[in-house]
Amino acid sequence: MEQFQIRTDLALETKERFEEDHVEVRGVRIEKEEDEKRELQITKVMIETENGAKIMKKPRGCYVTIEAPNLMEPDEGYHREVSVKLAEILCHLIENRVFTEDKDIKVLVVGLGNREVTPDALGPLVIEHLHVNRHILKEYGKYAMGVDHMVSVSGMVPGVMAQTGMESGEMIHGIIREVEPDLVIAIDALAARSTKRLNRTIQIADTGIHPGSGVGNHRQALNKETLGVPVIAIGIPTVVDAATIVNDTMKNLIEAMEEAKVLPTLSGSLKSLDEIETRQLVRELISPNLNGMFVTPKDIDDTIQRISYTVSEGLNLAFLNLAEYEKKPGKDTKKEF
Amino acid sequence: MEQFQIRTDLALETKERFEEDHVEVRGVRIEKEEDEKRELQITKVMIETENGAKIMKKPRGCYVTIEAPNLMEPDEGYHREVSVKLAEILCHLIENRVFTEDKDIKVLVVGLGNREVTPDALGPLVIEHLHVNRHILKEYGKYAMGVDHMVSVSGMVPGVMAQTGMESGEMIHGIIREVEPDLVIAIDALAARSTKRLNRTIQIADTGIHPGSGVGNHRQALNKETLGVPVIAIGIPTVVDAATIVNDTMKNLIEAMEEAKVLPTLSGSLKSLDEIETRQLVRELISPNLNGMFVTPKDIDDTIQRISYTVSEGLNLAFLNLAEYEKKPGKDTKKEF
Amino acid sequence: MEQFQIRTDLALETKERFEEDHVEVRGVRIEKEEDEKRELQITKVMIETENGAKIMKKPRGCYVTIEAPNLMEPDEGYHREVSVKLAEILCHLIENRVFTEDKDIKVLVVGLGNREVTPDALGPLVIEHLHVNRHILKEYGKYAMGVDHMVSVSGMVPGVMAQTGMESGEMIHGIIREVEPDLVIAIDALAARSTKRLNRTIQIADTGIHPGSGVGNHRQALNKETLGVPVIAIGIPTVVDAATIVNDTMKNLIEAMEEAKVLPTLSGSLKSLDEIETRQLVRELISPNLNGMFVTPKDIDDTIQRISYTVSEGLNLAFLNLAEYEKKPGKDTKKEF
Amino acid sequence: MEQFQIRTDLALETKERFEEDHVEVRGVRIEKEEDEKRELQITKVMIETENGAKIMKKPRGCYVTIEAPNLMEPDEGYHREVSVKLAEILCHLIENRVFTEDKDIKVLVVGLGNREVTPDALGPLVIEHLHVNRHILKEYGKYAMGVDHMVSVSGMVPGVMAQTGMESGEMIHGIIREVEPDLVIAIDALAARSTKRLNRTIQIADTGIHPGSGVGNHRQALNKETLGVPVIAIGIPTVVDAATIVNDTMKNLIEAMEEAKVLPTLSGSLKSLDEIETRQLVRELISPNLNGMFVTPKDIDDTIQRISYTVSEGLNLAFLNLAEYEKKPGKDTKKEF
Repeated sequence: MEQFQIRTDLALETKERFEEDHVEVRGVRIEKEEDEKRELQITKVMIETENGAKIMKKPRGCYVTIEAPNLMEPDEGYHREVSVKLAEILCHLIENRVFTEDKDIKVLVVGLGNREVTPDALGPLVIEHLHVNRHILKEYGKYAMGVDHMVSVSGMVPGVMAQTGMESGEMIHGIIREVEPDLVIAIDALAARSTKRLNRTIQIADTGIHPGSGVGNHRQALNKETLGVPVIAIGIPTVVDAATIVNDTMKNLIEAMEEAKVLPTLSGSLKSLDEIETRQLVRELISPNLNGMFVTPKDIDDTIQRISYTVSEGLNLAFLNLAEYEKKPGKDTKKEF
Repeated sequence: MEQFQIRTDLALETKERFEEDHVEVRGVRIEKEEDEKRELQITKVMIETENGAKIMKKPRGCYVTIEAPNLMEPDEGYHREVSVKLAEILCHLIENRVFTEDKDIKVLVVGLGNREVTPDALGPLVIEHLHVNRHILKEYGKYAMGVDHMVSVSGMVPGVMAQTGMESGEMIHGIIREVEPDLVIAIDALAARSTKRLNRTIQIADTGIHPGSGVGNHRQALNKETLGVPVIAIGIPTVVDAATIVNDTMKNLIEAMEEAKVLPTLSGSLKSLDEIETRQLVRELISPNLNGMFVTPKDIDDTIQRISYTVSEGLNLAFLNLAEYEKKPGKDTKKEF
Repeated sequence: MEQFQIRTDLALETKERFEEDHVEVRGVRIEKEEDEKRELQITKVMIETENGAKIMKKPRGCYVTIEAPNLMEPDEGYHREVSVKLAEILCHLIENRVFTEDKDIKVLVVGLGNREVTPDALGPLVIEHLHVNRHILKEYGKYAMGVDHMVSVSGMVPGVMAQTGMESGEMIHGIIREVEPDLVIAIDALAARSTKRLNRTIQIADTGIHPGSGVGNHRQALNKETLGVPVIAIGIPTVVDAATIVNDTMKNLIEAMEEAKVLPTLSGSLKSLDEIETRQLVRELISPNLNGMFVTPKDIDDTIQRISYTVSEGLNLAFLNLAEYEKKPGKDTKKEF
Repeated sequence: MEQFQIRTDLALETKERFEEDHVEVRGVRIEKEEDEKRELQITKVMIETENGAKIMKKPRGCYVTIEAPNLMEPDEGYHREVSVKLAEILCHLIENRVFTEDKDIKVLVVGLGNREVTPDALGPLVIEHLHVNRHILKEYGKYAMGVDHMVSVSGMVPGVMAQTGMESGEMIHGIIREVEPDLVIAIDALAARSTKRLNRTIQIADTGIHPGSGVGNHRQALNKETLGVPVIAIGIPTVVDAATIVNDTMKNLIEAMEEAKVLPTLSGSLKSLDEIETRQLVRELISPNLNGMFVTPKDIDDTIQRISYTVSEGLNLAFLNLAEYEKKPGKDTKKEF
């Protein structure tokens, strides 16, 4: 039922939505992979054409999703197997889609979001546990540190516009002009369409940050076009938009009534409403009070610590691996984790 | 439509619900008051009989609600006029319903909630700005401080059971045995039924904390029976239970469809469902994923600072006033603010 | 006794030191002012020549010090009279020494320091309570806000290099290139020479931040030369360098022994040591363990909140006043506070 | 030179002091142990008689010190080998000196100190990472959890009297009456006499907390006498009292001058001063401004996170081991780590 709005930052959910409606989307390819040992499911959604981008309402590029049902369980503070998988995916993305030559790379990691709103604190918390080394490399040089290649890592937390008076994009652009990284990795808390994905899904996209995405609804795009540097976006959905909850509920109501054979004609009747009448219905339904509201679980404080540590460890592992990779002769030699 | 569950910690909302359904509740009395100068609306719900308590599902006692639409606007950090009103109500409650004799009183203020979950941080933040003086009074005595009467104020934040291994009620009971206060004031973030009450309503109840209430769903009652000391509860709704949002949405859907004359028979049909069939419908509808989830606005970080400061200032003013009141001869002399 | 090292970021202390030794410093002028109503003492140290700069070991410029003995007392959370004085001085400095024409100005306020080390948290805490408006002005424009002139205010906290991998100076320079402010105001916690100045002195200097200054020992200078924009530095000493404490103690020991007539020849004997021998003495004395250590009072948590709020309020007042000032015809019309 | 005051919470430093002066202290026994594999040095100071207690100015009991020079190095976030050693010592102390029978024990861990003053945040930070289980045991019981014996662990942070109006001791006593633990473990940041011990020494004492000890100068003793329950105190020195630094400096000055043969008679002259004259000297020397001041290193924020995590992991390991130990038949069976 297309007239119901879907708010989701997850490409996977958007694709699913079309599959539910048996709509084929040309220009969008999917690859799935089961990692049985680690109990993870990896899905790659590749939007390959402009047409596919228009329908999916997301830019062309590659969107990898790690689904880790166990991420919800407390496990010695974080989930190393998820961090390892994240590192693998990141390295592959960087080596194959972003850079094609062997060189020392400089990475700026940006933690988007608001430290003071618990479900939006993912980015800042990841930066807290990130191992930065740019200042050490600048001071001592890589040879003094005993390696032939290094990945220079720096990190920043732009904060929120209400506190700084500046857009995240402006601050990041200014810093980029100063430190000239080869790559930006942006960490952000996302909004999902369904609560069943919350806090157990990681999306890695080589298309950067999309306007309107994130818990904070970012105003600007952060990508190669706007920043002049490739941007990989890593996101975990921690909230569901309240209006989306209501939309889905309505759908479920109608389907449930159909199944219960309570009102066999109801779905038919509602379907017979034209778009305009349905939107009227929806508008009266979704209280304007739900604008700017989100739904999040009560134990979000424990969860956000755990998932942010999982991401920061994934980044730290990835940067270590990239440095070693750069030492190897052939560039398609993948390091075993 | 009674079969839809209402989760609300606000007595006012419960009463409204019955009024909507034109149900008269015996044993419950309401008084309203407009404070035009300060743009506040005060409503007193007095549950006077056991029957009223049973219907309202809240204990017998007095529930005063301050509705302050302006509390949403940033105003020099906090809203003094709301603090002043809160102090007035508190003093009146203490002088008339809790204590009836002139004496120095000792108050323990308890900040319930979880500092690390933004909408549940109200209690801990209030304690941060509370002026405590018990240790000063113990050290120097009231006469050395130049007054005849004092209100001894102490404060505590029990934290969360997952962090301490102890129930808030256990910790408070232990502290009470040690410092022997005459009164406990418990501050808590509440769940409301509707988003339109969020962050602009303050409820002051002389019945203490009710099991199941609060963002954190308190397990124990905190009142005169369980703690041996009168408990006044001050709460501000900062979240709406996600399941409640869905319930209300269904109701609105059906009413909206009726009004739009889309399906004139729908409401009749749904009303014809017996309770069991409707509950089935509701259960399939409200995804189990919504359990333990709440809805809260995005700017909750600014808001929670502002409203907690408003409450702490109200408390500080109230304690100052009670001290002075105790100096006056006749106990029905109300101090002018 | 010049051989003892003085570590101080306060120009006032440096000047005093010379006065104690009856050394006249040419090229350095002092003006004192008593503000009896507010119980404040204002001292202006103006280093006017290169010679003066060399002797004082501080760049040429104007250093205004507010001494506020009462700043130590808790007073309704902060000290408005100090904020007002700070605002006056800031406005005067900006109007007369930094800008000479009427125009809308854009200010970037930078909170230097480390939020996680209590005495070094001054800068970040000031930014927390700063009223920024740049984003509002950009969105709505000044005329929509009903004024003819505005001061655009933005704020940033560069953090610490160990966390970001970037120097504060690099980050600030990058942001400046992006938002193009006319003025930078840098807030920093300082090291004083004597504990009697701690937390009750505010230094406002139009020379920016000096390398080696601040609790964090800033590596780079932040001034018009390095950033391309005038920089006003506001600092409050919150620590004393541990080595400085020891130096001063030695001096006091010798003077005390002289006065007590215990060893009349001691001071003479010690004075007879040549510089090299004394430095040897000092080196063996000042345990290398004292490097990188500072002295700070135990109640630093309360104090740092109070003084940072005093500074942020001073800034907020100053920006309001500058905006109004810009509306007045003659530029030497000083607004009455 | 006894007239110089020593402020130290470390029994080891007090004993060393006497050894330096070649003073034999009867009733005090020392045992040293090198743990070469882990690069740790363990020293046990056992004060066995009242005479020993009077001279040492510390109560009778056992004081174990772990010296871990590597604790200063960042090592994957914390130092597991130190945690393991701490757990071993704790288990031994509990099994042999506190409890002598096999039974399920209930432990209350108390994090003393002020979260908002970085070097005093050790206690609260340890509680943050402590694994509490009392609430789970109460709910499900140990048999449902598949063990025959459990150690019930709860934790609390009393905060500071200026914030609560209550002494830590009062709060702890009240909680003890409520949850009835068999043992209290109190974590506290200490003051050492010398900077060379800071942040690399852990003292475990079965005598609880001594009045006047700790960065916060605790007012009350927390021990079996005052709380009715055995108290084990775990402390790490994070500061040196500023006055102590000055005292030691004076001593070093005199010794240095002697060695440098600058003033051969100086030490003799100063030694000829009687106690009263020296105290006069000291008093004029140690500026009253140094009261309530402490010395701490600049990187205290990183350090305090690292050492508190090391302690919390030591506690978590100890409690796991005690539970298993309780399952074994003979109570002198030591579990191998």
